[in-house]
Amino acid sequence: MCGIFAYLNYRIPKQRQAIIETLIRGLQRLEYRGYDSAGIGFDGGSGEKENVGKQIQIVRTKGKVKDLQEEISKQDVDFDVVCDIHVGIAHTRWATHGAPANVNTHPQRSDEDNEFIVIHNGIITNYKDLRTFLESKGYEFESETDTESVAKLIKYIYDNSDNEEMSFDTLVERVVQQLEGAFALLFKSVHYPGQVVGTRRGSPMMIGILSEHKLSTDHIPVLYRSGKEKMGNCTLPRADSFSSLYAVGEEKGVEYFFASDASAIIEHTNRVIFLEDDDIAAVVNGRLSIHRVERRPSELPARAIQTLQMELQQMMKGNHSSFMQKEIFEQPESVVNTMRGRVNFEDLSVVLGGLKDSIKEMRRCRRIILIGCGTSYHAGVATRQILEELTELPVMVELSSDFLDRNTPVFRDDVCIFLSQSGETGDTLMALRYCKERRALTVGITNTVGSSISRETDCGVHINAGPEIGVASTKVYICQFVALVMFALMMCDDRISVQKRRAEIIHGLQKLPDMIKEVLSLDEEIHTVASELYQQRSVLIMGRGYHYATCLEGALKIKEMTFMHSEGILAGELKHGPLALVDKFMPVIMLIIRDQTFAKCQNALQQVLARQGRPIVICDKEDHESEKNAYRAIKVPHTVDCLQGILSVIPLQLLAFHLAVLRGYNVDDNKRLRKVEAEYVSPRKFRLWKDFALHTVFSKPKDTSMIL
Amino acid sequence: MCGIFAYLNYRIPKQRQAIIETLIRGLQRLEYRGYDSAGIGFDGGSGEKENVGKQIQIVRTKGKVKDLQEEISKQDVDFDVVCDIHVGIAHTRWATHGAPANVNTHPQRSDEDNEFIVIHNGIITNYKDLRTFLESKGYEFESETDTESVAKLIKYIYDNSDNEEMSFDTLVERVVQQLEGAFALLFKSVHYPGQVVGTRRGSPMMIGILSEHKLSTDHIPVLYRSGKEKMGNCTLPRADSFSSLYAVGEEKGVEYFFASDASAIIEHTNRVIFLEDDDIAAVVNGRLSIHRVERRPSELPARAIQTLQMELQQMMKGNHSSFMQKEIFEQPESVVNTMRGRVNFEDLSVVLGGLKDSIKEMRRCRRIILIGCGTSYHAGVATRQILEELTELPVMVELSSDFLDRNTPVFRDDVCIFLSQSGETGDTLMALRYCKERRALTVGITNTVGSSISRETDCGVHINAGPEIGVASTKVYICQFVALVMFALMMCDDRISVQKRRAEIIHGLQKLPDMIKEVLSLDEEIHTVASELYQQRSVLIMGRGYHYATCLEGALKIKEMTFMHSEGILAGELKHGPLALVDKFMPVIMLIIRDQTFAKCQNALQQVLARQGRPIVICDKEDHESEKNAYRAIKVPHTVDCLQGILSVIPLQLLAFHLAVLRGYNVDDNKRLRKVEAEYVSPRKFRLWKDFALHTVFSKPKDTSMIL
Repeated sequence: MCGIFAYLNYRIPKQRQAIIETLIRGLQRLEYRGYDSAGIGFDGGSGEKENVGKQIQIVRTKGKVKDLQEEISKQDVDFDVVCDIHVGIAHTRWATHGAPANVNTHPQRSDEDNEFIVIHNGIITNYKDLRTFLESKGYEFESETDTESVAKLIKYIYDNSDNEEMSFDTLVERVVQQLEGAFALLFKSVHYPGQVVGTRRGSPMMIGILSEHKLSTDHIPVLYRSGKEKMGNCTLPRADSFSSLYAVGEEKGVEYFFASDASAIIEHTNRVIFLEDDDIAAVVNGRLSIHRVERRPSELPARAIQTLQMELQQMMKGNHSSFMQKEIFEQPESVVNTMRGRVNFEDLSVVLGGLKDSIKEMRRCRRIILIGCGTSYHAGVATRQILEELTELPVMVELSSDFLDRNTPVFRDDVCIFLSQSGETGDTLMALRYCKERRALTVGITNTVGSSISRETDCGVHINAGPEIGVASTKVYICQFVALVMFALMMCDDRISVQKRRAEIIHGLQKLPDMIKEVLSLDEEIHTVASELYQQRSVLIMGRGYHYATCLEGALKIKEMTFMHSEGILAGELKHGPLALVDKFMPVIMLIIRDQTFAKCQNALQQVLARQGRPIVICDKEDHESEKNAYRAIKVPHTVDCLQGILSVIPLQLLAFHLAVLRGYNVDDNKRLRKVEAEYVSPRKFRLWKDFALHTVFSKPKDTSMIL
Repeated sequence: MCGIFAYLNYRIPKQRQAIIETLIRGLQRLEYRGYDSAGIGFDGGSGEKENVGKQIQIVRTKGKVKDLQEEISKQDVDFDVVCDIHVGIAHTRWATHGAPANVNTHPQRSDEDNEFIVIHNGIITNYKDLRTFLESKGYEFESETDTESVAKLIKYIYDNSDNEEMSFDTLVERVVQQLEGAFALLFKSVHYPGQVVGTRRGSPMMIGILSEHKLSTDHIPVLYRSGKEKMGNCTLPRADSFSSLYAVGEEKGVEYFFASDASAIIEHTNRVIFLEDDDIAAVVNGRLSIHRVERRPSELPARAIQTLQMELQQMMKGNHSSFMQKEIFEQPESVVNTMRGRVNFEDLSVVLGGLKDSIKEMRRCRRIILIGCGTSYHAGVATRQILEELTELPVMVELSSDFLDRNTPVFRDDVCIFLSQSGETGDTLMALRYCKERRALTVGITNTVGSSISRETDCGVHINAGPEIGVASTKVYICQFVALVMFALMMCDDRISVQKRRAEIIHGLQKLPDMIKEVLSLDEEIHTVASELYQQRSVLIMGRGYHYATCLEGALKIKEMTFMHSEGILAGELKHGPLALVDKFMPVIMLIIRDQTFAKCQNALQQVLARQGRPIVICDKEDHESEKNAYRAIKVPHTVDCLQGILSVIPLQLLAFHLAVLRGYNVDDNKRLRKVEAEYVSPRKFRLWKDFALHTVFSKPKDTSMIL
């Protein structure tokens, strides 16, 4: 996740100072989407008419937007120049490829002269192939990003267009056809001054429109290339040849704001267009056009100009009341991002780029140790069994602090995997250093490119979950889970005996996003459960096998969000003590899923019922038996056993959220946890959070119709 | 632990039927001390005067006392014979050497003619040497017990006494001088009809006296052998030569009851004498004498005849209100029993007989896996670190049910250790079979000789804690802990680099019993803490390093005894969630001990204080810093880091006990747990328990003075 923003003023003269301020403010609003580096691109030069747009200046730096502001003030920029027509683009980054460093910051550029610059949110999965191709053509790359290949590619196509005069959007269309993965892209070029082209596939993009004049329409028709034939490499028609080009604003002054989401737009205008996948939007001579290569079945023929009414904070959270809720609902998308470019559902291969070179050595190891704290530890517990099964190696899961306290013996033939959202968790980092001293092979699984753990490990995986603002980790748990399953799949891809199992799991992964959506649709039902439970003091969560981790993680979520005393209990241990706590007053949640442990879980259910417990059961959709015995049943879709834990934890995330709201806590401002987390886990995340608090009050836009 | 009982009637004619019933009733009262086999020895023959005591009959069987009753009814016994003078002895066994089998049941005998028979409670640690010696002299052993060597030894000494006419007690004195270990012994012989000799060292023994006539004294003077010279093998003086032999009852009719504790005596008489270590008590011609080889400094010159007033149930529990409390207070003795004959504090050697033959193979293993449920699992967690340190092997600790659920990979070069009090815990037994299939070396650590786990493992250790009646395991945890430490010490005894550390730990073990006593002396203080806490609903127990297991175990004790929601929390994980629960209302217990984790624990303490928590701190005696910050401090003596967990858990055992009492629960009749435990853990234990319940009402003895 990154934030992208562009500002185009057409025939509305603005001082360069004001333009840069607009860009910076846009970035500030989007900073929650990524905050490890930021950059802007704008027209340089003296501002003389004939030179306008002929030169592009880039300022970028690692760090937060305020670091960028400082950097701009140090640069040689003539702030007083007034531009009548101007395009500026801006980006705030959450690193996925390449550490947070100046050179990896966006805008990325085609060459030293900045002929084309591009900003990007998403992941280009075939960037290595593109890079290899372009390098063979003599292009020299300066960054480690996937984005740079897009910048180079557009120049390559431009330079090789056989003198054909190509419009900017056609050029972008040709670029996009070469790309795999997810993206929202914005392009600016010295060859197309005063123009901007944006496109998206899988990542969000919207356009705000501001004009003093009444817009002549509230729809932008979508243009299609005439005919159905595939565009060849060199026979792209020019945008001009599209049948009916319609423009908003025409020769009157107009301003456009392109952004990842409405939070960066709403302070300027509440009139917005949401782009859809594969839309290519271009502004030429102040006129916005949207075109597509192919019409999709039952597609609307136009994009409506919608009127938003939201407060800024709500903006950033989308439809959600808090970041935690937003992140819970983001999970279908998050797992897609984690798998993107890594799992090939056709040939059933799994390649984690970061581990490719080490996988042979890992396969020869004697033991795998998973090390983490809190939620990350639970992700290890959740995937231990499938790792054991597919690797046939001993797998240990360790709490970082205990691992260190114990001076655990570690050997050269161990593979130690370090799990941490921030990549900076103190104890986990120390455990990493401890293992490195002992020459173990170290692997990082983090959500933060360039973090200490990702730098200091021998190799690793970025889970690409995007920044997590909510105090309680939700999507990161799921993405770590998926990453570890992918690791297990990769470890065993050369073993014939497990191919059937691998295929089953990979098919399960494929269906996962839809199934997560299905679980999320239980929200209302879980709200009802929460409204019955929220006045309780304790909750027990019981399960076993693949779902033991779910219990631990669910209990932790409830603990940290609601301050209720919740505890995850291995159902197999019930009879050795914990059963004593069960009576008709103690809230009990049980995970009973149709897998190898089903009969034993049923047994546990009977024991709980015998003590007049009133269990809330999380079970399979089709499991009428458990439903019958349950006080309440929350029914989730059924998937492969080893992935089921992803689906079973989500009701508990939702429950923790609703309980917290019902108990009257501010979900995103958890006073009891924030400070400590900030000290230890990810100071940046929480500093950022504090900044947000300042923006809570924001004047509502005047229009009262609510479209979103 | 076993129960021993003898009944002597002198000039009080009794039918053999009545005598046997008295013996059986004695055993029933003592059955809680052991219940895997039982036996009696009495005078056989026709009952004609001249034959009295010339023939001894033994009836014994594995199983409970009621199985013995059945066995007696099947035997050829003339129940109608009336005996004027008679000695019968009886024993109920808790196996330590040799499985529960008929042949291993007591009484053990000197030969096929039953010339000498003996019953024994305790462990003779040098029995193998004795056996080797006696076998070299042509004695043929029929059992696997340590006791049989005592029976054979007394005959050997008798047969080799150079025609010297030796009294029975002198003979016993000579036997005892050859014995090492702990014992309470009762002897009967065809050579000394109508006589019985009892002696003890480390195991309890008392004598009840019943006479219609007023006793002429309430003290039995202790006789010493004149002079100080050591007794040689052949120059023992006869008992007759002792200076002043005093007898109670003289020629009048009198009955004596020898027993392990008062529960078997109180229904007959409330006049009792408690024997002290190395007392030798003999009844000859109805006269009781007590003699000793040497006077100890400041020893009382006589044993008082005390008058008891107690109910039967109280009897069985000693001074304690419940078995749980009794077992907590038994722990100094229990650890001695676990170490007896295994740890040599002089040459610092540790030999676990059951592992001796396998230790070389174990040292070559690649991994140690500890497997157990509930408290046994916690014993594994508690000793994992020292095992890792001393063996330098990876050590995994697994919950049996989870281990099975996960189909954990196990290999031929793994050593799998199974921990179970009863040796019958279902999941642990299944885990054992799972590991055996995979050819791992399996080791059992149980408290029950002849249990499934001790039979099916390749080798093992009996912890010799004696039967545990309390629902919540206390002494067994500590004894498992000590057994695992001994195992670790044995694993590394050939490594020079760890000798210093080994010595330190062995010295620590030596001081352990006294230190446990010191901790137990905090009982009153802990009662005060409990009285402040008992109305709470939740308790958090926090610690790390060696004391993480203490937290888990303490929380489990509180959970199962008090039904309060208690949870053990790794202090290192506090900041990753659990800290959210802490406020000024939540009771928090913290373990802060001066070891490697001390600074980090102090840190955790500060965090708890910062949230206005009011922590009860369990800390070192000398730790004034923690005491200062604590809301309350419970100060325990300091020992070697890896043994400290034994001392730190005891306050939590006591706390759980007091909380349960204060909350009004019947500590020994935990309705919520018993049934389930009975189904799964040790059916015998709980059947036995039920038998007890029938005996709750027992008429008080008339005398109202309370001496005990």
